[in-house]
Order: sequence, then structure tokens, then C-alpha cells
Amino acid sequence: MFTGLSAFPVTPLSDAGVDSGGLSRIVERLVGAGVESIGALGSTGSYPYLSTAERAQAARAAISAAGDVPVIIGVGALTLSDVIRNVDAAQSAGASGLLVSVMTYQPLTDEEVVAFFEDVAARSSVPICVYDNPGTTHVAFTDSMHERIAALPQVRSIKLPGAPVPAFTDRLGALRKAVPDDVTLGVSGDAFAGDALLGGADVWYSVIGGTLPEPAVALTLAAQRGDRAEVDAIATQLAPLWELCARYGSYRVVAHLAVLLGLTDTVAVRRPVRPLAEAAVAELRALLPRIAATVAVDRRTHAP
Amino acid sequence: MFTGLSAFPVTPLSDAGVDSGGLSRIVERLVGAGVESIGALGSTGSYPYLSTAERAQAARAAISAAGDVPVIIGVGALTLSDVIRNVDAAQSAGASGLLVSVMTYQPLTDEEVVAFFEDVAARSSVPICVYDNPGTTHVAFTDSMHERIAALPQVRSIKLPGAPVPAFTDRLGALRKAVPDDVTLGVSGDAFAGDALLGGADVWYSVIGGTLPEPAVALTLAAQRGDRAEVDAIATQLAPLWELCARYGSYRVVAHLAVLLGLTDTVAVRRPVRPLAEAAVAELRALLPRIAATVAVDRRTHAP
Repeated sequence: MFTGLSAFPVTPLSDAGVDSGGLSRIVERLVGAGVESIGALGSTGSYPYLSTAERAQAARAAISAAGDVPVIIGVGALTLSDVIRNVDAAQSAGASGLLVSVMTYQPLTDEEVVAFFEDVAARSSVPICVYDNPGTTHVAFTDSMHERIAALPQVRSIKLPGAPVPAFTDRLGALRKAVPDDVTLGVSGDAFAGDALLGGADVWYSVIGGTLPEPAVALTLAAQRGDRAEVDAIATQLAPLWELCARYGSYRVVAHLAVLLGLTDTVAVRRPVRPLAEAAVAELRALLPRIAATVAVDRRTHAP
Repeated sequence: MFTGLSAFPVTPLSDAGVDSGGLSRIVERLVGAGVESIGALGSTGSYPYLSTAERAQAARAAISAAGDVPVIIGVGALTLSDVIRNVDAAQSAGASGLLVSVMTYQPLTDEEVVAFFEDVAARSSVPICVYDNPGTTHVAFTDSMHERIAALPQVRSIKLPGAPVPAFTDRLGALRKAVPDDVTLGVSGDAFAGDALLGGADVWYSVIGGTLPEPAVALTLAAQRGDRAEVDAIATQLAPLWELCARYGSYRVVAHLAVLLGLTDTVAVRRPVRPLAEAAVAELRALLPRIAATVAVDRRTHAP
């Protein structure tokens, strides 16, 4: 489950709350594209902005729609008690795995972070992926912290922040020595994915894979067979999209992309986060023909 | 209300939730010490770690116990909809003012931050203090953002992060020119309070003032009459406590201090935040005679 392409869909939202039907359709599309797993309620899926009840609802919808494809549910929250509620709800809904972030308000000590994962693991009956994302959680995981956390039997993967080669591959090498063999190491930050996969990352925890699964699957398969030319060709096609993500935040960009592609009715962000200004949306809209070409190229190359 | 000493108490917590009786007793003690206002449900009061219902309960208890002393209620949350719920509950409970932080998970644009304050102000019928605390919210307020937010008629104070002189007084000077005359400028970060008040800050939003109100009141009064010698004498007595706060986090340190002083039964922090290790508690315990001396000095000097 924690290998290959793990695709993170948006959670469609309406004024009434989570749009379960919309989420089901998006998840079915990911299954059809051949993703290895689905990461529901990741950062892309608005997890910190949804209530415990909304998150339970979204987990049920995603898992029900995914069929045999494993679904990893994001359970992070500011308090351990809310995380435990999310763990229980995800497991009741049939989650195959949990994505565990440690959200912060007060800065946490390394000991508090490790103890948090111990507490969550003790409650988990399914495998855990550790969510290392300092850009949103402001927790700086050291290799030593990862070593201690990955020693917990429930922990089976680490979702690392993207970075250019060789910084990323250096870290990968250090962590390989520090964590058990059955703990996979993954990359997030789509722009870094190709090089990271070619450099030995086991899994791509992908934002765009949740909205544009075809090129993400194609890039992952190309990297797995060591085809750097094909990886670079797909990455070059997607680079302008990743530039918009870097400039405006991938959370906002993919929420708009989902609307432009007809996958959701409304831009799935919650205040204080706002939809993008029209000028930025126009930049994104201008990329659609290029994105369609990427999908078409992929279909031509990889059609069964 | 947004002048002088604004004292921020801990919110006593038990396994059952907020200890309203305990909070009432702490607030009554602050009233007796002559604080100018009480900041309930600040960072010191665990606001990000409490449910909406717990926060409404704590607001009612604090306001009821404060009598004629104005109570400012912290209403920040990760979503605007939760903030609005907290605003409504605080106003229903009789809050004299609101302390508004913009919590973040996804990094926010300057425009989103300003729009957030516009949305909150539109819902507020009582004065607002803007909570500028990049160490916990990761929002970097520029002077230009403060200018735009302080132009909202509900905004009447800004709680600024502490910094040494002249960095703090330079910022104070720049903001004085940028914000309306009826918007007061306050300092947080207790170790910086004396110099900041002597340098022109209107109000000290004080962590230790919520647990050790006597020396905090004395320091504030000394600064208001320009008595630098007395300010320095009190600050020197308290410096070892502030050093512990810098080392271990004031949230954890005052939660323990409240227990050591017999104000609360349990250490009022919630997981993933943990109580301090015994060695750190021993360091704090060793300061108690010195703290008692500070209070005694103050009583001798300022007894009516």
C-alpha cells in the first residue's frame, strides 16, 4: 500500500459540508486510472479544516468508493484526543492505513512528538504512515526522531517533504540506515517526485495524482522501470502547473483545477483560505490544453 | 480595557474538561490584585486545545467571576466558522472584548489574513485586540497589514510579540503612525515588558500576570510612573522565571507554577503537549522562595 503512486484527492465541499457523492466520483476515477493507493483527507483534502464528523463522513465515502484499492486516511489534529477520534472513525470505516501528522500550536519538543506517535500507534490496528511536513505542521523531524518513531510496529512508511537531489537522496540514504527494512520512504512535493523516485524513493504521495491521475501514474511507472527520458518528458509537461502550485499553494491550485476539470462544483477550500483571484485562475485555465496533451500523450504511450 | 496590565490566566483542566470553579477562583484572585483586564482563553489558557463547548463554558465562568473587571476572550481557531462560533459564545457570555488570532495550517496570504479580520470584525459587537504572535500562528504581520486591519472600527488594540529595545520601540513608532489614535499597542513576551512599557507600550498582555498578578501589577504601575529603578528591580527578581519560560515554553511553565502555588489541581496542558520532566519542575520549585519574595517586596512597597 505504501509504494508506487499514492494519490491525494480534494474533498469536495458545499455550503452543507462534505459532498460525499462528489468525493466518491473522484475516488472512482483514481481507481480507474490505476493508482496504487488513495490518500483521503490529506492536506489536499482539507483535513485540518473539517470537523470530526465531516472527516468520518468523508472517510466512509472514500473507502466505499475505492473498492479493492487501499485508502489511507489522514487523522491529524491539534489535540491527541481529536486524533484518537479520527483514528477510531477511520478504522471503523475500513481504512487500510492512517496518515498521521502532528499538528502544532505550541511548539512541541522532540520528546512530545515521539510520545504523540506512541500514543497514536497504541490505538491503531492498521499500518501508519508518518507525515513529515514542516511547511504546515512546523515540526522539524530529525533522523533520530524518525528512527524512534519508525521503530513502532504500526509505522510502515514515512512521507518526506520534497527537496532537490542530492539533498533528498542524501536524506533517503541516512533514513534507510535508521529505520526498519519494512518501512517505506516516500516523497511529497510533486515537482521533486521524478528525481526522488529515480533516486530510490518507494512511493510518491502526490497532490496532482489526486486530480490528474493519468500523468502521475505514467510518471511513477516510468520511474519504476528507470526510464529517465519518459519521467523528464512528463515532468516537463507538468512543470508550469507545479510552478503555479509553488506560487499560489498547491491546496488552492488543485481545488481550482478540480472545478476547471468538472470534478467539483465549488472551490474546495475553507476560510480563512480563499479561492484564487481571477488572474491566477486564468493562468491555470491557460494550462488546461497542455495538461490535456499530457494525458493524451500518456494514453498513447501506455494504452493497454 | 486595552491598557495597563492585562492578565492571562491558565484554564484549569481535569479529565472531565474545563474546571469552571477553579477558573473562577483564579479570576477572583486577579481581580483582587488590581489587574486592569483579564485575558481568558489566551495561549496561556489553552484556547487552541479546547472544544467550542469548553471554550464557551470557560468564557462564562471567567466573565461571571470577574465582576466589573473587563474580560477579553480569545476566539481564534483554524476555521473562520469556528471563530464565529467562539465570537458568538463570548459575546453571549458578556465579553468586554475579543482577542483575535489567525491560526494557520496552510500558510495564508496577506490578503487572506486581512479578509479574515474583516470577516471577524463584521460579526463583533465588542472591541477587538489583534493577536500578532508569529511563534504560534506563523503569520508574519507587516506594518501595512496592521494598518489595514486596525482601520476596522472594531479593532482597538494590537498585541505585539515582545522584542528587545530598540527593535520593539522602533516597531512601536512605525505602527503609531500607521494606526488610528484610539488603537492601543501592547507587548507580550513577559521578559520584554518592562522596557516596552517604559518605551511607550500602552498595555502588557502578560502570561505571568495571570498567575503572579502582584509583581506584574507592581511592574506595570512602576513603568507607568516612569520608575525605571523599580521596574528593573522587579524584572531582576522575575528573570530566572522568564528564563525557564524561554527554555521550556511559558505555556508549560505557568501550568506547573499554578499547581505549585495551589491554584490548580492538575497541570493544565493537553496532549500532545506534556507536563515538564521532574528535573525542570524541580528548577521551577527552587524559584518559589524568590517568587514569594517578589510578592512580599511588592506588598511592602505598594500596600494601600
